Amino acid sequence: MPDFIQPVLLCGGAGTRLWPASRGLRAKQFLPLTGTQSLFAQTVSRVVGAGYAEPLIICGPGHVDIAREQAGDRTLRLLVEPEPRNTAAAVALAVATCAPEQLLLVMPSDHIIADIAAFHDAIEQGSRLARDAWLVTFGVTPDRPDTGFGYIASGVALGDAGYAVARFVEKPPLAEAEAMLAAGGFNWNAGIFLFRADAMRAAMARHCPAILAAAERGVANATTDGDAQFVHAPSFKTAPSLSIDCAVMEKHDRVAVVPVSIGWSDLGTWHAVHAASNRDDAGNSASGSSFLHDSRGCLVRADDRRVSLIGMQDVAVIVDGDDILVMPLAHARIAAQAHE
Amino acid sequence: MPDFIQPVLLCGGAGTRLWPASRGLRAKQFLPLTGTQSLFAQTVSRVVGAGYAEPLIICGPGHVDIAREQAGDRTLRLLVEPEPRNTAAAVALAVATCAPEQLLLVMPSDHIIADIAAFHDAIEQGSRLARDAWLVTFGVTPDRPDTGFGYIASGVALGDAGYAVARFVEKPPLAEAEAMLAAGGFNWNAGIFLFRADAMRAAMARHCPAILAAAERGVANATTDGDAQFVHAPSFKTAPSLSIDCAVMEKHDRVAVVPVSIGWSDLGTWHAVHAASNRDDAGNSASGSSFLHDSRGCLVRADDRRVSLIGMQDVAVIVDGDDILVMPLAHARIAAQAHE
Repeated sequence: MPDFIQPVLLCGGAGTRLWPASRGLRAKQFLPLTGTQSLFAQTVSRVVGAGYAEPLIICGPGHVDIAREQAGDRTLRLLVEPEPRNTAAAVALAVATCAPEQLLLVMPSDHIIADIAAFHDAIEQGSRLARDAWLVTFGVTPDRPDTGFGYIASGVALGDAGYAVARFVEKPPLAEAEAMLAAGGFNWNAGIFLFRADAMRAAMARHCPAILAAAERGVANATTDGDAQFVHAPSFKTAPSLSIDCAVMEKHDRVAVVPVSIGWSDLGTWHAVHAASNRDDAGNSASGSSFLHDSRGCLVRADDRRVSLIGMQDVAVIVDGDDILVMPLAHARIAAQAHE
Repeated sequence: MPDFIQPVLLCGGAGTRLWPASRGLRAKQFLPLTGTQSLFAQTVSRVVGAGYAEPLIICGPGHVDIAREQAGDRTLRLLVEPEPRNTAAAVALAVATCAPEQLLLVMPSDHIIADIAAFHDAIEQGSRLARDAWLVTFGVTPDRPDTGFGYIASGVALGDAGYAVARFVEKPPLAEAEAMLAAGGFNWNAGIFLFRADAMRAAMARHCPAILAAAERGVANATTDGDAQFVHAPSFKTAPSLSIDCAVMEKHDRVAVVPVSIGWSDLGTWHAVHAASNRDDAGNSASGSSFLHDSRGCLVRADDRRVSLIGMQDVAVIVDGDDILVMPLAHARIAAQAHE
C-alpha cells in the first residue's frame, strides 16, 4: 500500500461568484485574491513534501497553461476535462487513474487555509479512517451562523479520529443555522475529502454507476501530451452532472467527518476575501496603484488601473478588464447570488 | 455701431476640478457631462441667431481640432493662446481683435444655463448698460449659502436694467454666505461679462496696462491659419496672470450687475453635475453601459466601461481611461479641492 497521499485539486469550476474578477480564463483560483500568490498556487504549496505525491490537477483545456505556469518548479499531473461535469465526475476521473489502495485527498483549488499545520494534523487523523475504507470529509468548525454553506451533523465517535456522519444539511435558513451553531456537533462542508481509491470506486459503482463508467471510459481512451492526459470527450460527456455530495457522500453508509479549525475560507464573497487579506491600519486592502483617502474597511482589486477612493467605507471596488463593480462589502453574498 | 453681440468663449482653463474626467485634452468643457452634448457645444448653441456674430473661441493649441469638431456646422473664429495666462489676458486678446464699439459677451465654456430665454432677456437688459460704457456682470441669484463662489454686492439701481456694483466678495466662509443670503442684494459671480470693446480697453489701459500691451502685441504678430489666429508667443507670455475680476472688475468705477435667474451651474463638482443631469426615478444618472441594482442617487460617468453598482447610495463613480474615482457625492467639493 502506498504510504503517501495523492492530492487531487479540482479546478473545473467556472468561479462566477466573484464576478467580475473571476470568469473564463481568469477563474477565481488563478487570481491572487488575498495577496501575491494565486489561490491555486497556495493550494499546490499546501500539499508538498515527503508524504505527498505530485498533485493531480483536474481542469479544463483553457487552464492547462496557467496551471503549469503557476505551479512553478512543482511537477504536476494534469487530467483535462473536455467540459465541466461537476465534482462527482471529476472525482471519478481521479479514482480511475489511481491504484486501488491509494489515498486520495480531494480539494477545491480556490479556498484558503491559514493554519497549514492544523490542516496536516487533520489529514493524518483522517488517514486512519480512510485506510479503514471510510470516505472522510473535513468539517470546518463554524464561528457564525453562516447560511452560505452546507452543514455536516456528527454521529457516533470513531475512536479519537472523527465521527460517523449522521446527515448532511443543505444551506440552511438563518434560524436553522443559528440553532445548529448553538447545538454544536455541526460543521461546515468545506468540500475537502480523503478516501482510498477503491473505497470511493465501490461507493460510486453502487450510487452513481453511470458517472463512474463515463469517467473510466474517458480515462481509458484519453490522449496523453507530456504531463497532461486529455480525457476522451464522447465518453466523458455522458456522465450525469452531480456534486460528489449528492452523488455519493449523502448516500453512502461509511462516511466520516473530521472536525477542523484550520483558518479556512472559501472566499465565496468579496467580504470573505477582505477578511482573509492583509489590511492596513484603516482596514483597507488595496491592490495595484490605488489611492485611498479618508476611507476605511474597503477592498480594492484593480490590476493595473488607478482606483481612487475618497471618503468611502466598507465598500468593494473590483476592476477586471472593462468591468467595474462597486458595492458594500456587506452586500457581497447577495450580489454573488444575483450573478450566479 | 454694430447692433449684434460678439460672443467670446473662454476655453483656456485646465478644468482639473472634476478630476479624473477633465484633464489635458479631455478638458471639462469638451465632455458631455450632463447629457449627450458637450458643455462647449451647449455654450456655442446658446449664442446663435441674428443678434450674434460667429463665436470667438479663446483656447489652447491642443483644443483647436476638438472645438471645430464640436461646433458642427457653426462657423467659429479661433484665437489660440500659446499658453494659458488667466482670464484678464484672454479678455484682452478678444478686445484686441474687435472694433471699438463692438459689444462683447464673455462666457466660460464649461457652465450650463437651463433657461435660455431668461439668459437672452438678461443680455438684452445688460446691453443697455454696456452701450453706455458700463462693464456689465451677470450675478446669479443664490438659492443656498454656497461657499464655492464669489459674491457681488449690488449698489445703486441703474434704472430698471441693473445695479452699480458696490463691491466684490471673495469666496466666503459659511457664516458670511448665510448672512449674505439672508440680507439679499448679493449674487454669485458667474464669470459672464458684457461690455463695449473700447470701454474694456480703456479700463485695462488704466488698471492692467501690461496685460493689455502683451495681448495687443500678441494679436498684432499673430499667424493666421484658416479660421484660427495663433497669438504670438513671445509677446503674450509677458502678460501677468490675473483673473479679469482682480485685474479690472474689482478696481473699475463703472461696473454694473444684472441679477439673473437662468438655471445656471458651473458644474464645479460632481454633485453639481449630478444635480444638472437627467436622472431616473431612483435619482441615478448613469452613462454608458452601466448596471445599477438597488442603488439610489448615484452618478456614473464611465465612457465605454461597464460599471455595476449594487446597493450603493449617493456616490459618484467616474471612470476616465485607466483612472477610476469613487466617492460620496456629498464629498465632491472637498475632493475637488484636494486635487486642484
